[in-house]
Amino acid sequence: MDKLIYVRPDEIEAKSFELIEEELKRLGKCLPDDESMASQAAGSASIRRAPIIKRVIHTTADFDYADNLVFSEDALITAERLLKSGCVIVTDTNMTLAGINKTALNRLRAEAVCYMADEDVARQARERGMTRAAVSVEKAMELDRPVIYAVGNAPTALIKIHEGLTESKLGQAYDNGNGRGPALVIGVPVGFVNVIAAKELIMSDDIPYIVAKGRKGGSNVAAAIINAILYQLTDR
Amino acid sequence: MDKLIYVRPDEIEAKSFELIEEELKRLGKCLPDDESMASQAAGSASIRRAPIIKRVIHTTADFDYADNLVFSEDALITAERLLKSGCVIVTDTNMTLAGINKTALNRLRAEAVCYMADEDVARQARERGMTRAAVSVEKAMELDRPVIYAVGNAPTALIKIHEGLTESKLGQAYDNGNGRGPALVIGVPVGFVNVIAAKELIMSDDIPYIVAKGRKGGSNVAAAIINAILYQLTDR
Repeated sequence: MDKLIYVRPDEIEAKSFELIEEELKRLGKCLPDDESMASQAAGSASIRRAPIIKRVIHTTADFDYADNLVFSEDALITAERLLKSGCVIVTDTNMTLAGINKTALNRLRAEAVCYMADEDVARQARERGMTRAAVSVEKAMELDRPVIYAVGNAPTALIKIHEGLTESKLGQAYDNGNGRGPALVIGVPVGFVNVIAAKELIMSDDIPYIVAKGRKGGSNVAAAIINAILYQLTDR
Repeated sequence: MDKLIYVRPDEIEAKSFELIEEELKRLGKCLPDDESMASQAAGSASIRRAPIIKRVIHTTADFDYADNLVFSEDALITAERLLKSGCVIVTDTNMTLAGINKTALNRLRAEAVCYMADEDVARQARERGMTRAAVSVEKAMELDRPVIYAVGNAPTALIKIHEGLTESKLGQAYDNGNGRGPALVIGVPVGFVNVIAAKELIMSDDIPYIVAKGRKGGSNVAAAIINAILYQLTDR
């Protein structure tokens, strides 16, 4: 039998990250080192990739994410700019919404919403033969604030974002930070139908993204990524 | 690039399960066949293990769960009896609570609660140097209805349940369905500190359990297990 060890409640998380780091070493997996990069470049983000990857591993106990999680070059600097200027995080599940740390979010005066249980979304989805996730993306397109999409479940949400970009409804708008487009896509849906293809579509678009390549991901992964970013910006 | 395929929104889930079954076959993994068992034994549960395991794989895209998920002999018959007689599901995260299908839950007149964000729980945890999850278990022990614990995050919740059983506060009470004890433990916390040891403790206790062996699990896994049970009982 595995033995229980005593760890003070407020030290469990730090101890977990220590164990994750040891295991990463044992597995010979090196996480990206953004520290030196950040100290050199003036305009670079203060958010690092490694704490995000480690938090996702912490949430899943799955070291595949050390290889799976990919970041577009402008993802983190965009995340920082947006979260510091009051963007809206739109999630595709209420689980992700529940998992986002509201204290950290409020400190940044950012907001998180989920339209999946909205009456109008359900009705339109039924009438138009779409998924509620795709209708939710359309609804979010109407917001006049920049949006971070946190997609942990529905590849159809990513496909709808891609279509929006292609139709130039959203294209290029993201860069000025006051357009109607998604400014950052966290594309980590999980599953078997169109999940890989939808992620490839987003990675081929000209938009900042954080994507979990392959079939894995989930509501918990989306929340973990958001929280890892929020914690770095609020020095939790 | 992976190609998009068209699947009608209302057929995505069925298609996913089809692909999961194909992959299980390819991997040579056989899920437990409870069908024949159920048709033979009069007192056996109408809930099957295979749909639970498949739903967890659907939620995680992680086929490890085909091997990891273990069920005590009385787990499913207990789940059925409890959910049909108005038990309370106590979750250790608001994410799991958010992920449980409320329509199915309401149909059975069961209830789900999470105490993690309660003021009194936070205060006690601070004062007594415990985790909020362990205090939540104590709070749930005061309920005068049977409880299903859905633990997707905190091994300290499992340890507290084990202590309760050992101290005979909860012991044996579960079997008559009106005692104060946890009647069923869904023990799928994820992580690195005491997770394996806590699961082993629960499996050594005389209590019905569903456990994900090893470090894996999560809020999403706990919700998927609950939903897979609810769907079987409500013929969704």
